[in-house]
Amino acid sequence: MTEKYIYSFQKGDGKNKMLLGGKGANLCEMTQIGLNVPPGFVITTTACLDYINNQRLPDGLMDEVKAHITEVETQTEKQFGGRDNPLLVSVRSGSAISMPGMMDTILNLGLNKQTLAGLIDQTGDPRFAYDAYRRFIQLFGKVALGIDDEKFDQHFDAIKKQAGIKADVGLDSEHLRQISELFLQVVHEETGKPFPEDVYEQLELSIKAVFNSWMGKRAVDYRREFHITPKMANGTAVNVVTMVFGNMGNDCATGVGFTRNPGTGANEMYGEYLVNAQGEDVVAGIRTPKPVHELANEMPDLYRQLVELRNKLETHYKEVQDYEYTIERGILYCLQTRNGKMNAAAMVRTSVEMVAEGLIDKKRALLRINPELLEQLLHPQLDPNSTAEAVAQGLPASPGAACGKCVFEADTAEQLGRAGEAVILLREETKPEDIHGFFAAQGILTSRGGKTSHAAVVARGMGKACVAGAEDIKIDVRSRQAIIGELHIREGDMITIDGSTGLIFLGRIPTIEPSFSDELKTLLSWADEVAELEVHANVDTPERARLAASYGATGIGLCRTERMFNASDRLPLVIDMILAGNKEARQEALAKLFPIQRDDFQELFEAMSPYPVTVRLLDPPMHEFLPGEHQLEDEIRALNQYKIMIQGQQVTLDTLGSHALLPSPFNHLNEEVINKAIAKKELMLSKVKELYEVNPMLGHRGVRLGMSYPEIYQMQIRSILEAAALCIKQRKPILPEIMVPQVITVQELIKVKSYVDQIQKEVEKQYGIDLEFKFGTMVETVRACTRAAKLADVAEFFSFGTNDLTQATFSFSREDAENKFLPLYNESGLLADNPFEVLDAKGVGQLMKMTVESGRQTRPDIKVGICGEQGGHPESIRFCHHIKLDYVSCSAPRIPIARLAAAHAKLLENEYNIEY
Amino acid sequence: MTEKYIYSFQKGDGKNKMLLGGKGANLCEMTQIGLNVPPGFVITTTACLDYINNQRLPDGLMDEVKAHITEVETQTEKQFGGRDNPLLVSVRSGSAISMPGMMDTILNLGLNKQTLAGLIDQTGDPRFAYDAYRRFIQLFGKVALGIDDEKFDQHFDAIKKQAGIKADVGLDSEHLRQISELFLQVVHEETGKPFPEDVYEQLELSIKAVFNSWMGKRAVDYRREFHITPKMANGTAVNVVTMVFGNMGNDCATGVGFTRNPGTGANEMYGEYLVNAQGEDVVAGIRTPKPVHELANEMPDLYRQLVELRNKLETHYKEVQDYEYTIERGILYCLQTRNGKMNAAAMVRTSVEMVAEGLIDKKRALLRINPELLEQLLHPQLDPNSTAEAVAQGLPASPGAACGKCVFEADTAEQLGRAGEAVILLREETKPEDIHGFFAAQGILTSRGGKTSHAAVVARGMGKACVAGAEDIKIDVRSRQAIIGELHIREGDMITIDGSTGLIFLGRIPTIEPSFSDELKTLLSWADEVAELEVHANVDTPERARLAASYGATGIGLCRTERMFNASDRLPLVIDMILAGNKEARQEALAKLFPIQRDDFQELFEAMSPYPVTVRLLDPPMHEFLPGEHQLEDEIRALNQYKIMIQGQQVTLDTLGSHALLPSPFNHLNEEVINKAIAKKELMLSKVKELYEVNPMLGHRGVRLGMSYPEIYQMQIRSILEAAALCIKQRKPILPEIMVPQVITVQELIKVKSYVDQIQKEVEKQYGIDLEFKFGTMVETVRACTRAAKLADVAEFFSFGTNDLTQATFSFSREDAENKFLPLYNESGLLADNPFEVLDAKGVGQLMKMTVESGRQTRPDIKVGICGEQGGHPESIRFCHHIKLDYVSCSAPRIPIARLAAAHAKLLENEYNIEY
Repeated sequence: MTEKYIYSFQKGDGKNKMLLGGKGANLCEMTQIGLNVPPGFVITTTACLDYINNQRLPDGLMDEVKAHITEVETQTEKQFGGRDNPLLVSVRSGSAISMPGMMDTILNLGLNKQTLAGLIDQTGDPRFAYDAYRRFIQLFGKVALGIDDEKFDQHFDAIKKQAGIKADVGLDSEHLRQISELFLQVVHEETGKPFPEDVYEQLELSIKAVFNSWMGKRAVDYRREFHITPKMANGTAVNVVTMVFGNMGNDCATGVGFTRNPGTGANEMYGEYLVNAQGEDVVAGIRTPKPVHELANEMPDLYRQLVELRNKLETHYKEVQDYEYTIERGILYCLQTRNGKMNAAAMVRTSVEMVAEGLIDKKRALLRINPELLEQLLHPQLDPNSTAEAVAQGLPASPGAACGKCVFEADTAEQLGRAGEAVILLREETKPEDIHGFFAAQGILTSRGGKTSHAAVVARGMGKACVAGAEDIKIDVRSRQAIIGELHIREGDMITIDGSTGLIFLGRIPTIEPSFSDELKTLLSWADEVAELEVHANVDTPERARLAASYGATGIGLCRTERMFNASDRLPLVIDMILAGNKEARQEALAKLFPIQRDDFQELFEAMSPYPVTVRLLDPPMHEFLPGEHQLEDEIRALNQYKIMIQGQQVTLDTLGSHALLPSPFNHLNEEVINKAIAKKELMLSKVKELYEVNPMLGHRGVRLGMSYPEIYQMQIRSILEAAALCIKQRKPILPEIMVPQVITVQELIKVKSYVDQIQKEVEKQYGIDLEFKFGTMVETVRACTRAAKLADVAEFFSFGTNDLTQATFSFSREDAENKFLPLYNESGLLADNPFEVLDAKGVGQLMKMTVESGRQTRPDIKVGICGEQGGHPESIRFCHHIKLDYVSCSAPRIPIARLAAAHAKLLENEYNIEY
Repeated sequence: MTEKYIYSFQKGDGKNKMLLGGKGANLCEMTQIGLNVPPGFVITTTACLDYINNQRLPDGLMDEVKAHITEVETQTEKQFGGRDNPLLVSVRSGSAISMPGMMDTILNLGLNKQTLAGLIDQTGDPRFAYDAYRRFIQLFGKVALGIDDEKFDQHFDAIKKQAGIKADVGLDSEHLRQISELFLQVVHEETGKPFPEDVYEQLELSIKAVFNSWMGKRAVDYRREFHITPKMANGTAVNVVTMVFGNMGNDCATGVGFTRNPGTGANEMYGEYLVNAQGEDVVAGIRTPKPVHELANEMPDLYRQLVELRNKLETHYKEVQDYEYTIERGILYCLQTRNGKMNAAAMVRTSVEMVAEGLIDKKRALLRINPELLEQLLHPQLDPNSTAEAVAQGLPASPGAACGKCVFEADTAEQLGRAGEAVILLREETKPEDIHGFFAAQGILTSRGGKTSHAAVVARGMGKACVAGAEDIKIDVRSRQAIIGELHIREGDMITIDGSTGLIFLGRIPTIEPSFSDELKTLLSWADEVAELEVHANVDTPERARLAASYGATGIGLCRTERMFNASDRLPLVIDMILAGNKEARQEALAKLFPIQRDDFQELFEAMSPYPVTVRLLDPPMHEFLPGEHQLEDEIRALNQYKIMIQGQQVTLDTLGSHALLPSPFNHLNEEVINKAIAKKELMLSKVKELYEVNPMLGHRGVRLGMSYPEIYQMQIRSILEAAALCIKQRKPILPEIMVPQVITVQELIKVKSYVDQIQKEVEKQYGIDLEFKFGTMVETVRACTRAAKLADVAEFFSFGTNDLTQATFSFSREDAENKFLPLYNESGLLADNPFEVLDAKGVGQLMKMTVESGRQTRPDIKVGICGEQGGHPESIRFCHHIKLDYVSCSAPRIPIARLAAAHAKLLENEYNIEY
């Protein structure tokens, strides 16, 4: 039995894209739901593959084609190759996966001398007819006969030049007739044969050409580039579709529309049209199209049909549609429809409204929105209408747009910020001592460092815009300038940065403020109903905790206590602790820090009440709290210079070239104070040298500090437990969790637990209460993964620190990798993703899976979560659901994304498939 | 039925240490093999536990004791408490595990007024008798009655003072009699009762005292400290043994002996004795003992008995014995025997000879030697007789002792070395550009850096002695001095360093040269017969390869090509390559390196023919080949200063304070040359800054370089394959293996393999031959472990780089860890071992096991080895055997150790048990 190679639009299976291609299936589906689609048929991809294998069309194919053309003739009452009412068709490629522009299309097929004359008679518009004719000859010549475009273009340009005409629209019917004649000559010369007058010959050659284009270089390269395998798309179908014309007179029109307003999501007619025009005219911008509601006056009946079309589309597709139509002589044809692309606000509103209308269910309402899209709703965005050009670009380190005056020092940022100015802090790179500048600034811009640099991490935590590592910008703190080639940006100049793209603009670019709408709240509440993963927040301050709670966080998954250390009233105490020469001096400094930390924790616990708050004990190496070696050397040099000036009694700030380097408290002080300052800086310098590490990432940090300096961890544990006691006294329900970083062996946990047990007893006695809290560990070293079964003997929870775990698994230092070789790895396909953004399921993920399984074997109810940055990334969240984590924790602005992604993960869990 | 609590030495089971204690079992065994052991019996540990539980002796125990005493009386023809021929006994503790000095012993028990008188009559030596008596009273008083030693000592000292006598030996019998009387008074005063005259009362009290000592504080602390659990030793036995005396006259003697010469291993009588002396006199050194062969003249019959004793001991124990004996009135008693401790040479020789004699089999010959012991045989050792005191200590970074003149610069080392001087190179830390100094020096001493510092790693690879990180030493290159407190060591001063202990000495300390004896060769050939693991070498030069082959390496497991880059004729080319601004310039520099590398490889392949040579492609980050930032800044400053001096025309080297910093080729050159040098240094400085990495361990290195700069890897691959082609042309059988470092994904391997395939084709064509070689990967990132199944698609072998893998698994930077916190971790028991020395079976090992299993699933015949430093460590080798690796690779001097350890691993595989 011979295979059926052709399906009419009435018969083809609208779901079978593999057989009919995406476009063909879509045309069949539209036809079969009763839309007025121009009649036509699809030649299957099977025919294409047969053709390619045998290098000839399958037997009987052209007979099938003729039969279907006859059917179309019947439907349209036109004749293919007939003079009076000629049927013209387009021949279009279309494979299962869209490959825009990669394969060929021929329009107006069916024109020859005879049908051309008929068309002129029929339309009374020779210009229209010749224009169609010359286009057909060139396209057919190129696609079906392989003639170089240039052969045609040179004649076309010659006629234009001869006629003194610049734009194609200036050509009249006579010009176009001449061009058509010349084109026919080109074909004859190039092929040695006249242009085929037989319309079936035209059609056969075109079908072959489309089939051939599947193996054309462009298409093959495209498939390789986008990893399109034969399983995804194999061969192209050919769609033969009746041509309809919106430019045959004033009862003709063409238009595009959305079934709802894609800007706002409002449930209303939306779109534009042009009378007596071709589809491409709407887009080309030569004539200004009219808003669709004017059609209601101009062609009331057709407007009614259009409303009907729109309703049919939504009822059938259950999705906002972006559609194209043409009105030919009073008849409305629907040419194409596809899911409409909308902004985040519109997606959310339409989701909620379509559920209310009963059009879709909640599951679909959730699934139709890409979680990442919600990012738009949580940060200021640059106005998309702005046409300003960027002057430089760095890494998109913390999303959102921000404008402000340039400042080059944290102190200045603080001064101007207090005075109510919006400022952007520009630094080569930032250090913990710049932290007050972050609080004061709208955004941060650095010329060095990657997405994990201090600036980037702190800015993300604070939800401030940050562009990092803009290497084309030279930051000169001494002269207070940022230099980009010839361009000098000075202190006080206004700039705008976009942390979502990394772009930097001069002046103030308008921005759109974020909004957390009621619709979004509704949608996310549906997400929470579905999701199994809870979403916690990585936050370090009560303000951010309240924000996270307002975004729907049900806990704090990571509070980094060192962030508290960095605030400007604490840092000097921390530095005293580090400089302490012995345990007693260290304890003295810690005693001063203790009440501050306790109060911080109390406020934090209250802000997140009644949800759990996971506090990580001190993690970073001590030297991170001290200024850099070079900076200290510079400062000491500047102080010495200043002292000499004072001694010479000629000091003014201006005479001192490098005064910008003077730490601000010393600007106006006497020699004695300066001497003390120098002594302190020198002490710091020697400590910095002592603490120097070759690979600080793998150095003296985390629980290793807790082993070397038990008093630091003991102070922190006491702060947490006393804060908890104070909350309990006030009958605030709270759930503190103490988390130990960088653990490699259960022995470390046993040791820290012994501190906890002792302090718990003391606090319970002191306050006369019983404390309830959990004790657990970060899992961020590989050894913790291999020892998980043992760790779970002591740990009541695990929290994956996937930033560090990824670094250890890949042996990639994130900063170095992102600056030096990771871009090459991603571009050349050595690695599909940046593993610091997208959880590496095959490597890191495998370790996580092993950890969860062995941890739960020891302690079945152990709570397991993730607090690395990937915890806010939808694909990673899907993996976390797959390996049955209890929660993900991410920065506050990513909470809505994570909530939606957690719902997706559950809804799509059966489709999840990972090849280890 | 009542339990039997006592066994005579004739009846006790010599294997049942748990019941009889180690000493008791040993006495039983010696007795039963026919040695003349003084008669006696053992009271079991069960009796001890009963006593401790019930706080009284088990019913009937003393009756059993009396029965056994009667038996001993019969054997010795003495009477316990009898006057004429009194039986004296010792009461000694002894548990299953030896706890030296932790529990109590009582001697001469059975003395009272009556037996004392009898003893005086019997010996005619009242001094001997009173001395025994006063000792017994004090020991019994202290142990059985709990009287403070001091109570006795004060009387003893008073008598001595009164008599004007300094040493105890000066006391005569009258003094000792007085002392005995005073001691009896002490006992009466302290206990309110007279000293017990009833010898059975003495015995009962003593047995209880020994039992009690099991729960004494000292013993309990000792068991806790050394983790002795009740499974290992539970309770102490009590040994009641007839006293024999070597000091009862000239027919008495006492001595110690080894069954073979423990210094050389020679099969000869060995030991010393003293006539009419107590055992302790031999050790005390008051009288000089005589060599045992003199006994042949002095007491020929007894000498014959002693030879017989020795033969019996070896025949029975099948091990060299260290034994003690006493001759009492012409009768030889054997008091104790244990396995003899010997140096490595003696152990090896005795092993081989005992097999030849048929005394032991090869298995025992191998197992009786601790592999680590062989280290002695491969490096010069400090003469153990030297009494010199160290002036400082650093880390033992590369074993062996070395003496030489101090030099502070590699150039000086080279000059003096060429002149035939032995030198020690002293540096704060070393850099690749010091490499020619390593070649010239006998040893290396640094004041900074750990066991994995450049100095340590390079020295180990070269087999040179190295002491690293001797922080008490201040190295001042400018003044060419090493300063230790007040001590100034100047250039040219002679010092000795011991890389096995880290000690540093002034002057020349005698050393013992290593020897690779025929016996060692024989022993190791037996090891090879047994072992399943092959042993390869980590070497980088033909000389070292020949050395490794002579030590029995059957391949090179790791040739680090960058070591070749460091030689002084190559480094400038490497630096040119790094400084190259573009690919062309880089290729030009590489073209110059190419023939050098090719010739190196050819020589290396030939040196190891016919065994495999695994060449690792370039691994370290580029900045490792450049001097440090500070050094370059100093050099530029010095050059500028020098230029100013030249301009002022007053230059002599002496006027230039910092001339020591001038790179030597510039010492006498003109301004133009200096300017060029400055320009080059500045270029290097800017490159160093560009290449700066936060965590170089995890940075742009290994295959990441091969991805960024394919031309480097291509040059290396071509060098390897052309070298192979040249060998094949000369009919040398060779087996090159190309190894890719730092791999994280199979994509990297596929890429490098594509370079290899292309170059292979070209070389095969050029030389007209077929190449045979293997292509494989280091497994040194955790991700490589998780992706092993995939990597094995491309890799024909895996080689575990456990140095890096350990760093990644622990998130420990080795240098930082060993300097900052690892000592604390080891001391406090957080980690049992340093995982960089002993493979961490529970973490790293688990990853390795997983890797081997999944790699072999993909490619069953994949060859898997280890080339990290742990590969030369016996315990780690045992683990490698356990997980079925094919080979271990280690530095040349550890090859004999590894061969023996590999045999042990096989022989003991059934006893291997690891708890993950």
